[in-house]
Amino acid sequence: MTDSITAAIDAQLATATFVDPHSHIDPHAPAARSLADILGYHYYTELAHSAGVSRDRIEAPGLTPEERVERIVAGLGPLANTIQHAWLMEIARDLFSFEGDALDHTNWRRLADLVASRTAAADWEETVLGKNRMEAVFLTNDFDDPLEGFDTSTYVPCLRVDELVFHTGKAGVLERLGRSSGEAVSDRAGVHRAIGALAERFLRRGARAAAISLPPDFRPYKPDAAAAERALAAVRSAGPAAAATDRAVLAADLLWRVAECCDGCRLPFDLMIGVRRSVYPGGVYQGQDLLDGRLSLADYAPLFNAFPRVAFPVSVLSHPLNHELVSFAWIFPNVYPFGHWWYANTPAVIERDLEQRLEAVPRTKLLGYYSDMYKLEFGYPKFAMYRRVLSRVLARRFVGERGWSEERAVDLGLDLLVRNTRRVFYPAAA
Amino acid sequence: MTDSITAAIDAQLATATFVDPHSHIDPHAPAARSLADILGYHYYTELAHSAGVSRDRIEAPGLTPEERVERIVAGLGPLANTIQHAWLMEIARDLFSFEGDALDHTNWRRLADLVASRTAAADWEETVLGKNRMEAVFLTNDFDDPLEGFDTSTYVPCLRVDELVFHTGKAGVLERLGRSSGEAVSDRAGVHRAIGALAERFLRRGARAAAISLPPDFRPYKPDAAAAERALAAVRSAGPAAAATDRAVLAADLLWRVAECCDGCRLPFDLMIGVRRSVYPGGVYQGQDLLDGRLSLADYAPLFNAFPRVAFPVSVLSHPLNHELVSFAWIFPNVYPFGHWWYANTPAVIERDLEQRLEAVPRTKLLGYYSDMYKLEFGYPKFAMYRRVLSRVLARRFVGERGWSEERAVDLGLDLLVRNTRRVFYPAAA
Amino acid sequence: MTDSITAAIDAQLATATFVDPHSHIDPHAPAARSLADILGYHYYTELAHSAGVSRDRIEAPGLTPEERVERIVAGLGPLANTIQHAWLMEIARDLFSFEGDALDHTNWRRLADLVASRTAAADWEETVLGKNRMEAVFLTNDFDDPLEGFDTSTYVPCLRVDELVFHTGKAGVLERLGRSSGEAVSDRAGVHRAIGALAERFLRRGARAAAISLPPDFRPYKPDAAAAERALAAVRSAGPAAAATDRAVLAADLLWRVAECCDGCRLPFDLMIGVRRSVYPGGVYQGQDLLDGRLSLADYAPLFNAFPRVAFPVSVLSHPLNHELVSFAWIFPNVYPFGHWWYANTPAVIERDLEQRLEAVPRTKLLGYYSDMYKLEFGYPKFAMYRRVLSRVLARRFVGERGWSEERAVDLGLDLLVRNTRRVFYPAAA
Repeated sequence: MTDSITAAIDAQLATATFVDPHSHIDPHAPAARSLADILGYHYYTELAHSAGVSRDRIEAPGLTPEERVERIVAGLGPLANTIQHAWLMEIARDLFSFEGDALDHTNWRRLADLVASRTAAADWEETVLGKNRMEAVFLTNDFDDPLEGFDTSTYVPCLRVDELVFHTGKAGVLERLGRSSGEAVSDRAGVHRAIGALAERFLRRGARAAAISLPPDFRPYKPDAAAAERALAAVRSAGPAAAATDRAVLAADLLWRVAECCDGCRLPFDLMIGVRRSVYPGGVYQGQDLLDGRLSLADYAPLFNAFPRVAFPVSVLSHPLNHELVSFAWIFPNVYPFGHWWYANTPAVIERDLEQRLEAVPRTKLLGYYSDMYKLEFGYPKFAMYRRVLSRVLARRFVGERGWSEERAVDLGLDLLVRNTRRVFYPAAA
Repeated sequence: MTDSITAAIDAQLATATFVDPHSHIDPHAPAARSLADILGYHYYTELAHSAGVSRDRIEAPGLTPEERVERIVAGLGPLANTIQHAWLMEIARDLFSFEGDALDHTNWRRLADLVASRTAAADWEETVLGKNRMEAVFLTNDFDDPLEGFDTSTYVPCLRVDELVFHTGKAGVLERLGRSSGEAVSDRAGVHRAIGALAERFLRRGARAAAISLPPDFRPYKPDAAAAERALAAVRSAGPAAAATDRAVLAADLLWRVAECCDGCRLPFDLMIGVRRSVYPGGVYQGQDLLDGRLSLADYAPLFNAFPRVAFPVSVLSHPLNHELVSFAWIFPNVYPFGHWWYANTPAVIERDLEQRLEAVPRTKLLGYYSDMYKLEFGYPKFAMYRRVLSRVLARRFVGERGWSEERAVDLGLDLLVRNTRRVFYPAAA
Repeated sequence: MTDSITAAIDAQLATATFVDPHSHIDPHAPAARSLADILGYHYYTELAHSAGVSRDRIEAPGLTPEERVERIVAGLGPLANTIQHAWLMEIARDLFSFEGDALDHTNWRRLADLVASRTAAADWEETVLGKNRMEAVFLTNDFDDPLEGFDTSTYVPCLRVDELVFHTGKAGVLERLGRSSGEAVSDRAGVHRAIGALAERFLRRGARAAAISLPPDFRPYKPDAAAAERALAAVRSAGPAAAATDRAVLAADLLWRVAECCDGCRLPFDLMIGVRRSVYPGGVYQGQDLLDGRLSLADYAPLFNAFPRVAFPVSVLSHPLNHELVSFAWIFPNVYPFGHWWYANTPAVIERDLEQRLEAVPRTKLLGYYSDMYKLEFGYPKFAMYRRVLSRVLARRFVGERGWSEERAVDLGLDLLVRNTRRVFYPAAA
């Protein structure tokens, strides 16, 4: 009985249109143009590599896109069980009318042809957005992105500050900050003014969030001003070779400054917590980072306490931290569980996370899901996967165990899928 | 099929009477007298606050209880999905014959009237105890509680030592220790004697446990006597402003002393591990504490090893620590998994915890559940929730997967719900 | 419907023969000869002790095997819910035709007689291997084990290096290393040569893996050669009383050396991570160790990065670390999730672990299960338990939720149960 209720709820949720509050879409090339664009997603290259394909084989310089596709396809067999493989085949079937459970050397050209011809249509981008039922898609923009040449109500800017906060000393970063903000960035006051200016610029261009990903050992706090000034000077002069303590003080100072600007601009500040970069430097492009669960959200209490008016959508990369995320969102008015990120974005993990969130966090605070996609086509299977898990949890835990009507369960689902994104990221409109 | 077996097991477990081994009941006012008493439970104020109601609005000085109820009710809508909301509506329906799925401005006065009239009955307290099927309810008593004026076989004293161990330097604490014990507390020997005296006094007044909640960074050990003496002197002279190391040494010394007294008095010592106090100081009353999972029960091995005759019922606040709790209870004869505490007291978390406990810890050691309630009425929906989860796990894992008879599964359930509380806290009788 | 699909998948998986890639079997006495051999498994003594039987009672010197069995049986009642008890009764029923749900003083002699008579048969060992459907069983061999007198294609040597790496200073260890390798072990170069020699000897005798269990605070790295030389000298002269830092440096150096030899010999190196030894020194034999979850697999990145050609089958003792294990195996080509170890080897834990692994790690990398058994008889219920859980996950997650055919699900199951062990440990043949 739960199965049929799950299907009924899913069918209703699938008719809703919504905003995707986090992606890596390039607004100048949002949709795929070829099978290479689809199979180039790091999930396929990294999993094929994990299963035995050498990095050289799929990242050799001079490979044509077709050769690259052929080599990735040759490595897909061992991935047939993974959810990422299921996404691929759902795209192939539902967006490109491809028939088959798997890709191999006998059939991938057929799919490549289908992709090439369909995506060549002038309205393909609109077609996919319609299939996805997405009204708008949030982007991930460098701090000096000009944000020009696209419709920012469909592709909504989001100020990504990782580079600014953690790589301030990298060649060119401060220069780009100065140039894009029009501020002199020769001292801390100037850098802070520049950050204010770029936040305002993003706001004027329709931005609806700032965002940062954070390593497990980061601890937010407001450093002493003099110490921060010294740290900035040290990083400015030594660059990435500056002492770790100087870099840490500067990062804390800049993150705090971004939070101040979010406060002033009423921008939510997405925190994506727990990634360790370059754990596997021998990995393929974008397949080198991992997680480390040794942190507590208690480390973030100073930030949550200092900025009660800033909404903090929080993603945790380590599944065991979901219980802390639930508990912190239960207590802090400005903490919002935010989607299911990266290594935690698989059905069994989502199901466990969601069960806990749905029974203990106010329904208006649950920011259900985001795609994290690089090409629009992936919004289709990812949100479909999420809706299926959500429907199953609603059917089992609310209709089955708590005696809710199906209608009431669907309404709860719509908070997660549709309304809360509007509530948190479009507060004036809500 | 599992659903009908779950219901059958639940129906049988629901006829059993039992002892609730941990609550915050005031024995002089155990039951609610008004809807304000019910909605004043921190779960409703903190969740309403989390969903957007300002603290000022519900904690303004001078609010009448009725105004406060009105304001909390106005904030309940976003909580409809939470299990705490389900508790509230189950109380309303089953204890007060209220009809409806939710409270709002149109109907809360009707429930308030029902609560006022029912709870005014002279036998209301007995009625609720009967509805709850509780034979006795453990309390949480300050160390200088006179323990007079109530039936200690129904409301069983429990010596709570948080204040004594962690706030020794707070104004008045040592004085109250001296006065209530009749010992001079001017040095460590005197303080230790005083703790011995109060343990004996509690024992004479029917106490069946000592209890303490512990922060995640606490590490039990027996400090050197001279160091402990110096720490006591430092805390006595500087009060709460004493150095953190002095306070830590003193806390370790006093906790160890409490354990010695539990050993001497054959009292179980409840350890509730992992709470961080005042993480959100801007929160409502009792809605400011949170958890931090960075600890291991291995830190407690020195305590478990030093006191093999003391039963340690252990609660962990962080769900991921349940696997350690299961494993430690599997190996240490004196470690008992104890209920499902606070942020871990929601159905999906209980279900995962229980599955692990039931398959790896001897059945005689599983202390199933406690209410943690402040008013008797909450014992009703909380134990009902627990029984439903327990029944589901028994039906699925034992009847379904391991081929047990329903009768055998019910018998296992009774160990958790009824017998083990007797075994551990009433050892002479068992 | 899921139940019948589960049963159908289980029935098919149960016909497959396979290799058990980790056990503690003594190849000179692989099968039980008495009920004492079966009930002597530490699970029964430690759980009976946990439930109240004193260590003295079951480990008293001079007890006859029969007296010991009688005393353990007397303590089994409280264990009836545990999965270990289910293993025992499944052995009794399916291997020895014993009828009954439990052992007690009225019937244990009947089982003892059945065990004695059946196991006395000349072909009992082959019978059990056949019942288990095991083609080969990996051993756990001391570094100086002569590896003589048994068929190493059935009982496959595995070089266990805990003693060598962590107890180098213990009386006799270096001497045994020197003697068994024929190398002078008076300095670091000699010790390294000796390790190389013993790895080659193991390889010649058919070894297919090296293995080590690691404490939670171990951090693999390659120490500076001079520091390692000094550490060896310090440990050689002071023995187990050497400074902790010297012992740590030496352990890191020796583990790294073993990894080098695995690289040279193309041996997989099993890492069993997270055990704390002697947490409960008052416990029964082999019932004193526990776990501590405060680690991250990120600590092992230096090892995984330095030896890309070495396969590292990784077991984690702490269930919450499964999500890291899944993520690391998803990214690192040489990291393989390896079975479900010890405190994580119970059905509810396996089910959660397996769900995560099956949806995110390439199917060719999932080393499903090993028995960890001391006597062959336990391979029967342990693998049966694993197959039931695996079948349930396949039925629910793949046939039910992802629309796979039953045949395709069985094929995926065979990768975990049969093929991947061959792929990883018998690479030349695969």
